[in-house]
Amino acid sequence: MPKNAVIILAPGYEELEAVAVVDILRRGGVDIKIAAAGMSPVPSARDVKIEPDITLDQARTSVFDLIVLPGGIDSTETLASDKTVVAMLENQLDNGRLVGAICAAPTVLDRHGLSKGKVICCHPVCRDAVRQSTLSEERVIEDGQIITSQGPGTALEFAFRLLERLEGKDKAEEVNKGVLAKL
Amino acid sequence: MPKNAVIILAPGYEELEAVAVVDILRRGGVDIKIAAAGMSPVPSARDVKIEPDITLDQARTSVFDLIVLPGGIDSTETLASDKTVVAMLENQLDNGRLVGAICAAPTVLDRHGLSKGKVICCHPVCRDAVRQSTLSEERVIEDGQIITSQGPGTALEFAFRLLERLEGKDKAEEVNKGVLAKL
Repeated sequence: MPKNAVIILAPGYEELEAVAVVDILRRGGVDIKIAAAGMSPVPSARDVKIEPDITLDQARTSVFDLIVLPGGIDSTETLASDKTVVAMLENQLDNGRLVGAICAAPTVLDRHGLSKGKVICCHPVCRDAVRQSTLSEERVIEDGQIITSQGPGTALEFAFRLLERLEGKDKAEEVNKGVLAKL
Repeated sequence: MPKNAVIILAPGYEELEAVAVVDILRRGGVDIKIAAAGMSPVPSARDVKIEPDITLDQARTSVFDLIVLPGGIDSTETLASDKTVVAMLENQLDNGRLVGAICAAPTVLDRHGLSKGKVICCHPVCRDAVRQSTLSEERVIEDGQIITSQGPGTALEFAFRLLERLEGKDKAEEVNKGVLAKL
């Protein structure tokens, strides 16, 4: 059975972070859906308008091997205050499954105590907002079920790390033969 | 006056290449529009559906400092056989303005003799299709008005090179402070 995943968009998401994850996971055979609450298509931080595959309500009732939150200041505020999103993340971690967050989005985990005591990284401008987690300056860091990364320029490294966690190192290396990323 | 640019999407475009260029140029203050002929939203190679800003017909009658073609096998075939696109590229180069192409898209230039005698690069799998240009194995290469690059994994380097050509090295470096790309 192929692994599955969901990435949750809210207006103002970082477009490059979202698309890097979807592109690399789909190349690797992961069934990743783009979910969004409300507005469709969803405008990114720099107004790239992407049509979601499913609604947040459809995502809420599904089981995913991985839930990913892209960054973006406005989008992170929306995700952090959305009870459905927070409940999905809690449930995901409680059930031993994976969560990935990049750029400003790791602060969603920190704010709700979901990464308490774990090592995470985030965009340098968001570091002051991290209170309950241990900060790393790595470009991508994994601690148990939580994989975090710093920003648009680290998004490919993040996406390949997520693929590695879901489908293994060999699959990630095979996919990168066509992608040509410096990892 | 801010510089302006257009990126032309056809179904099957490489989503990461398109979004990297739009993201980085918009961060740098370049007014870049996403143009598409026909279908809207436009499905990418891995079915990310992006809503264009303008139609190809609107793009055709505008003057841009830079025209960009993202890669993708299907999209490249469509662009190469679209008379409007080819006429726009000819006119762009005849008027001393810039053209950027990445992945499979540099073969559009080669096929129509637009990069004749120039040094270009493209995705390794497309190299055999290059007949009238000199092939480079660089990740990004500039020869006069033509800037080319290899694939999704080189898209950020390509996008920053385009920004550098339009707005200078200082602007590109300033933008990368927030992006965190390894260039």
